[in-house]
Amino acid sequence: MTSQKEPQGEFSTLTKVTGPSSWSRVSCPCCISSNIEPLVLIQLAESVQPLTKQWIMSMISAPVMAGGAQLLVHPGEDMKGDMIVVAAPRCTLLRVTEDLGLCKTYQDDNMTAFSFDDRDNFRNIDDMQKFLTLAERQYIVKYELDSMRAMEDQRIPGIPTPKGKLKARVSILQKLEKAGVIRNVTPLHEPKLLTALGKQWYSQKSLWGQPLDSIHAYFGGTIAYYFSFLDYYTLSLFPPAILGLFITFFVPSANFSSGNKTDSERALKDFDDQPSVSSYMVQAVFSMLWSTIFMELWKRRSAALSYRWGTFNLAEQFQEPRPGFHGELGINPVTGRQEPLFPDWKRRLRIGLVSVPVVGVFLGLVVMGMAGFYFCERLVSNWHKGSGSYFTLPLLYIPSIAHIVYTNVLGNIYRNVALQLTESENHREESSFDYHHTTKVLVFTFFNNFAVLFHIAFFKEDMPLLRKRLASLLIVTQVVNQFTEVVVPFLVDRFLTSADRNLKEDDPEVDHLQAQGSLPAFPGLFAEYIELLVQFGYLSLFSCVYPLTAPLLLLNNLTEIRTDAYKLCKLFNKPFSAPVANMGVWQLAFEVLSFISVMSNCWLLLLSPRVKELTQEAGLSSSQILVIAIIVEHVLIMVKMILAFMIPDEPDWVRIERERIEYHSMQALKKQKIKSSRVDDKLPPKAKMGE
Amino acid sequence: MTSQKEPQGEFSTLTKVTGPSSWSRVSCPCCISSNIEPLVLIQLAESVQPLTKQWIMSMISAPVMAGGAQLLVHPGEDMKGDMIVVAAPRCTLLRVTEDLGLCKTYQDDNMTAFSFDDRDNFRNIDDMQKFLTLAERQYIVKYELDSMRAMEDQRIPGIPTPKGKLKARVSILQKLEKAGVIRNVTPLHEPKLLTALGKQWYSQKSLWGQPLDSIHAYFGGTIAYYFSFLDYYTLSLFPPAILGLFITFFVPSANFSSGNKTDSERALKDFDDQPSVSSYMVQAVFSMLWSTIFMELWKRRSAALSYRWGTFNLAEQFQEPRPGFHGELGINPVTGRQEPLFPDWKRRLRIGLVSVPVVGVFLGLVVMGMAGFYFCERLVSNWHKGSGSYFTLPLLYIPSIAHIVYTNVLGNIYRNVALQLTESENHREESSFDYHHTTKVLVFTFFNNFAVLFHIAFFKEDMPLLRKRLASLLIVTQVVNQFTEVVVPFLVDRFLTSADRNLKEDDPEVDHLQAQGSLPAFPGLFAEYIELLVQFGYLSLFSCVYPLTAPLLLLNNLTEIRTDAYKLCKLFNKPFSAPVANMGVWQLAFEVLSFISVMSNCWLLLLSPRVKELTQEAGLSSSQILVIAIIVEHVLIMVKMILAFMIPDEPDWVRIERERIEYHSMQALKKQKIKSSRVDDKLPPKAKMGE
Repeated sequence: MTSQKEPQGEFSTLTKVTGPSSWSRVSCPCCISSNIEPLVLIQLAESVQPLTKQWIMSMISAPVMAGGAQLLVHPGEDMKGDMIVVAAPRCTLLRVTEDLGLCKTYQDDNMTAFSFDDRDNFRNIDDMQKFLTLAERQYIVKYELDSMRAMEDQRIPGIPTPKGKLKARVSILQKLEKAGVIRNVTPLHEPKLLTALGKQWYSQKSLWGQPLDSIHAYFGGTIAYYFSFLDYYTLSLFPPAILGLFITFFVPSANFSSGNKTDSERALKDFDDQPSVSSYMVQAVFSMLWSTIFMELWKRRSAALSYRWGTFNLAEQFQEPRPGFHGELGINPVTGRQEPLFPDWKRRLRIGLVSVPVVGVFLGLVVMGMAGFYFCERLVSNWHKGSGSYFTLPLLYIPSIAHIVYTNVLGNIYRNVALQLTESENHREESSFDYHHTTKVLVFTFFNNFAVLFHIAFFKEDMPLLRKRLASLLIVTQVVNQFTEVVVPFLVDRFLTSADRNLKEDDPEVDHLQAQGSLPAFPGLFAEYIELLVQFGYLSLFSCVYPLTAPLLLLNNLTEIRTDAYKLCKLFNKPFSAPVANMGVWQLAFEVLSFISVMSNCWLLLLSPRVKELTQEAGLSSSQILVIAIIVEHVLIMVKMILAFMIPDEPDWVRIERERIEYHSMQALKKQKIKSSRVDDKLPPKAKMGE
Repeated sequence: MTSQKEPQGEFSTLTKVTGPSSWSRVSCPCCISSNIEPLVLIQLAESVQPLTKQWIMSMISAPVMAGGAQLLVHPGEDMKGDMIVVAAPRCTLLRVTEDLGLCKTYQDDNMTAFSFDDRDNFRNIDDMQKFLTLAERQYIVKYELDSMRAMEDQRIPGIPTPKGKLKARVSILQKLEKAGVIRNVTPLHEPKLLTALGKQWYSQKSLWGQPLDSIHAYFGGTIAYYFSFLDYYTLSLFPPAILGLFITFFVPSANFSSGNKTDSERALKDFDDQPSVSSYMVQAVFSMLWSTIFMELWKRRSAALSYRWGTFNLAEQFQEPRPGFHGELGINPVTGRQEPLFPDWKRRLRIGLVSVPVVGVFLGLVVMGMAGFYFCERLVSNWHKGSGSYFTLPLLYIPSIAHIVYTNVLGNIYRNVALQLTESENHREESSFDYHHTTKVLVFTFFNNFAVLFHIAFFKEDMPLLRKRLASLLIVTQVVNQFTEVVVPFLVDRFLTSADRNLKEDDPEVDHLQAQGSLPAFPGLFAEYIELLVQFGYLSLFSCVYPLTAPLLLLNNLTEIRTDAYKLCKLFNKPFSAPVANMGVWQLAFEVLSFISVMSNCWLLLLSPRVKELTQEAGLSSSQILVIAIIVEHVLIMVKMILAFMIPDEPDWVRIERERIEYHSMQALKKQKIKSSRVDDKLPPKAKMGE
């Protein structure tokens, strides 16, 4: 909420250029305002007829009862142009705020679930720019657009019949997007706010701290959570980084004493050295403790953020279902609203009997691919050795190339299959859809990334190869990432788009809007999160093999924060971002990983050459070693669980706030029942009890 | 709710004998009634002076504001007698019903959390005998007695100072019990109801079905849940019992073809036979599937029962803390009531840093005891062999005797330690106290029971010994149980107490009361539940080794139901039983066990001699077998988790009811805020929105 004090400057331009009369009218008296803030840009296909545009605009401004979105629309330049600008009247903003279950500051300074009828007791209610963040206002517009539904079977004017047919209860926006009428829907930037945010965020000299509240206000929930986590994660990397550096440079390695080499030479040579057993042990135990405390403290931080951002009481199951949800029309037994119904057991059946087995088959295909690769490689290299000729040399590359092609094709097929499967599971809530979709892609990606490392570690039991592989993965992916994420975008921005930008600054508002829509769509946070998760995997699963992992990751993250921020602000269309209460499925993924890491570290310890020597010296049989390893593993898991139990998942003050709301709503329900029965006037109020 | 239609017959006797004037007076006009139902009997020590008795009675009838229980008291025969009879006025019953969060039938026939102010809209509100079950009324009296607290430092009249000192906020009942003034507090039986219940329950000819609703009404929540589970469990034993019988008698065993022996001979001989691999496999997979479906369906049944019994909305965290809870006096931030506060993190620290390690040490002592036993046994038998004399023969028994003594002493010490630890964890809610206490005892008992079997199965890898051990455990414990639980009580009841009983039937009400208090206290359900759990352990962990387990258990349970019922009705004082929403920690224990059973079955399969032969024939190396076993184990766990996911934990209609209540209380909270702000008259109601 940094520079929102004079927001009129931004959006009055459009009003000036086109005149206030070009905005659609509002029926509600409290919503009439001379300052209308354009929030969302809808870009139509160029071929769209004015008739169709007119119809879309009329639907957007129609009341909710008529299947519309009850928003304000503006035709851009004129009715022939290919864009529609959407704004929101005050009443719509407030009504949806209640529907979403957002919490706002009440007059007693507590965060309280917003209630439309009680609006006058909330702070800042008279200034929508202060009451709701920009991201929230834009998300509300998106939410309303998504909930536009045809009330009966009809045709979209100006679109030929097979495409233009609209069945009753079908989401209008989805239909228009499928029919190619709408190219995209983007929230609009506010250039002044964006510049201020950018200055605070990625242009500042200081390395630490991000303006999380401003990010949340400008970009919204999911994005703010990603950056909060990235920030927290980067800070948390310091202890393991320091330990890693210490072990690399100050603990003498056991096999070769690397003598008088300089530190950097030693670091490079260190790939082949065997760290001593004690440093192995220290790393493994430290990594286990660190990953547990890391996740537990993040949960607390996440709970605190969700209170601060008013999202700790979201009630998605009581909202309208997501646009793609279908089912027999009926009355929701909980809310009493008419909506499609789909039985939960059918969804569970589909997940259990279709989705899980299909995902399993694909994971099997990954393993088969790997096995095939190793098999072919051995075959080809034997053949090459046998023939001894130069002509068979290129053949050596064929297995690798085939494997890469296979992996890529499989990955692409899988991505489509995962989407189809999740669609057919027919989730009612957007968050539940995301959860299941992300989980599917996540498991596959993770498997793809780690199958080879696990194979090297536990089947080949080849520690030096594992260390080399880990080191090259870390260094190569970092260099590639830095290059693609920093250098390329920077160059593109500097040289290719600067011409456009100069043009923009002189131009009228409308062209400025046009320019905003022309950037590529933001690809979502999946790639960003999976990068962090894979990193975290290298660190927690295998770091005891290669202690420099943590320092390298720390370096990477420090630049990652800036490049991600820059990318988001400059290189893509602004994305919509829903208010959320946590990281969703990603939190679970990190937790599962930190659980697996206990086992992984135990077995790595057991397999390390020095431990093998030690146990052989002590004369232990292999089954005795196994028993010892299992006991150590279980003790460590036990310690991990005790630690996780001892650190509560939410700070006390958040828990108390949550319970207070629960308690008061229980009380209120009882009171309301009495009042409603009194209003019925069946029973006069009885004398209260003596106590 | 079977025969509650004319309950007046039972308790009017006391009123007649002693005259209605002997009951304490009520201030509240709606509570005055000529029919006062005696609910609870308090037995004092014989030495207690009339002065003390007078004080106790005055406290019990004092209003809650003065630290009393707001109940009705009756001095029994006269002020010199050693008993106090307690009844409850209507208002107290209703107020506590609301405090407990019990749900009752609303005028719209939905179960709704009871609200005192809204009482007239609940069904049967005019007849407390119909509105609340007997067990609920009695639990409410207990709840009120427990919540009596000294308002300031004072002395109990008639008790010498060190014992008779009462500090402010101390629970009066606890203090009186500790000081030996109160011998016990028991709910009273209603002989007619009890006879009717007994007829339905254990005297009926039919083997199936228990009158669960009547049990719930008469004995209350925890006991009704135990019998519901026992009932369900017994029915569920049919499929594995049939499979077990089939495998025992119709599948030819692999090693010895037992030829022309009769079935019963074969069954006896079967202990030493090796079942074929396929029957091993079938048993293991079946046991895994069965235990999963068993638990999932029980959860659904349990949810349905909790709705039916009005306990699905209990709000213990908003109630008064349990009597033993201590802490600094303060204002509960959620409910706004004054009560002792104790920070949650302190409790977690104590659990994590004290309780868990101490429990771990005791488990270690069990293992050490077992190791010591085996060590001594080998030592002694070698010595005996060496000496070859008859004098060393008795020495052979010393290790066993020492081990039994050691186990018993350890168990007794542990029981005290577990109670102390749980006390020091200072739980606020009774259920949370029970949960942690039961878990501690449970883990230890379980470890004690299964350590030997696990040792035989996985360290000695001696399958025939495991089968012999399992068979003798099952048969011996059953015979012992049947004897102690059926024969002894029956004989005691027939011959020792019949004289008393004849006396009772002719005697006045007061002596009848006296007789009730003289039975031993009900020892609680722990022993009953742990018996079921250990059974379930034999069945799910090791049944593939000994297929007759399930039929034997089924037989046992069919009598178990009757004997438990008989015991409860006839041989012990009636226990208090809180309204609960599920089996609590026991459900978790059964689930954990069914999870462990997957692993156990996998390893048993791997270790079975036939599988060993097969793998040797197939020429697999031991590490390959291990990998295969791990894969099979994980696939089975996967299948188990998918099954558990696909069967929802509560029936749809319960979920909808729960969500409806949640939704309505959210709405009500919002409405209430508006109303309260309108009452403040700060802001007039605004015009409603167009929609």
